[in-house]
Amino acid sequence: MGIVTCQLSVSIDGYLAGPDQSLENPIGVGGMRLHEWHVAPSGPDVEIVEQMLANDGAYIQGRKMFGGGSGEWDLGWTGWWGDDPPYHAPVFVLTHHKREQLPMQGGTTFHFVTDGIEVALARARAVAGEKNIAIAGGASTVQQYLAAGLVDELHLHIAPVILGAGERLLDHIGQPELEIVEVVDSPAVTHVKYRVVRAS
Amino acid sequence: MGIVTCQLSVSIDGYLAGPDQSLENPIGVGGMRLHEWHVAPSGPDVEIVEQMLANDGAYIQGRKMFGGGSGEWDLGWTGWWGDDPPYHAPVFVLTHHKREQLPMQGGTTFHFVTDGIEVALARARAVAGEKNIAIAGGASTVQQYLAAGLVDELHLHIAPVILGAGERLLDHIGQPELEIVEVVDSPAVTHVKYRVVRAS
Repeated sequence: MGIVTCQLSVSIDGYLAGPDQSLENPIGVGGMRLHEWHVAPSGPDVEIVEQMLANDGAYIQGRKMFGGGSGEWDLGWTGWWGDDPPYHAPVFVLTHHKREQLPMQGGTTFHFVTDGIEVALARARAVAGEKNIAIAGGASTVQQYLAAGLVDELHLHIAPVILGAGERLLDHIGQPELEIVEVVDSPAVTHVKYRVVRAS
Repeated sequence: MGIVTCQLSVSIDGYLAGPDQSLENPIGVGGMRLHEWHVAPSGPDVEIVEQMLANDGAYIQGRKMFGGGSGEWDLGWTGWWGDDPPYHAPVFVLTHHKREQLPMQGGTTFHFVTDGIEVALARARAVAGEKNIAIAGGASTVQQYLAAGLVDELHLHIAPVILGAGERLLDHIGQPELEIVEVVDSPAVTHVKYRVVRAS
């Protein structure tokens, strides 16, 4: 059986997104700087992403990560990523709004789950098989899974960026006990893989 | 001429100390967990510390790091570290209270500076020669030097610990631009050396 991971880019002061988040700029002011390491054409950063994608059999994300207001959903909002989202696997979106599943190109299908985080995880496990399940954000979704003790590994991509304000990743989760599993570094970012030894 | 560094142990959620700091427990509840990596008898963590100590010609620290209330100072308070503090070099303590310099065993002398951070830095430079000057904490002292654009390198020892509350290291400093210089990892902690490219 696969494990449950959270794989997230954060600033060194612990932010997942910058301040002034909005529907137009869900990652906040300066938040894109956390993801600049993705531009490397090759090297350790590319290998890390390829490894993640190869290992992930299903994703879970919060409503805000999928995006769109209820008005936009009525008009057929299909997420931020265009016709061929980068997941290439089933994505379970936590929401209070029922909606039919939404198949996209390239193997991504969005499923909308209104029964809470444990049901979403059970459904993700059912389709992931031997592969991993990645909790793909945003912060409050990650915090809910961490606080519930449902996460096996936390993979942080620590960008050399100080945001000073915005949305913090690791608030409201108590003090889960962690262990360093692996560190991979590049000039652009420091990848640290932590195992959750015991939920707080 | 040496450079100005800050070398600090932090939690992955960005805390330098835990909550409920007091004169008796200046590092706060759980704060000692950030320093557990120091127990390794050998290996990369020991080498990092030896390298720091060998390169540092002078230290600057805030009043709270030196410790003691004014009553204790009158009674001859000499800091937290006993007769032979671990600095083995001049230490400039930022304070509003004038006090004669305090020579300790092993080469540490505490100097009390009442004229602000730039004067303390000039005095530290004068004695450090070709060696580095380390801003040794606490958070507000580090923040003042970072905000003033006076720090060349930030060396973070990122412990696999989530504190959830306490004193944050990198608040109130704007968004200085950083570059990763070096990463050294061990099972106990991830050492990341950042160069400050431009103050915010």
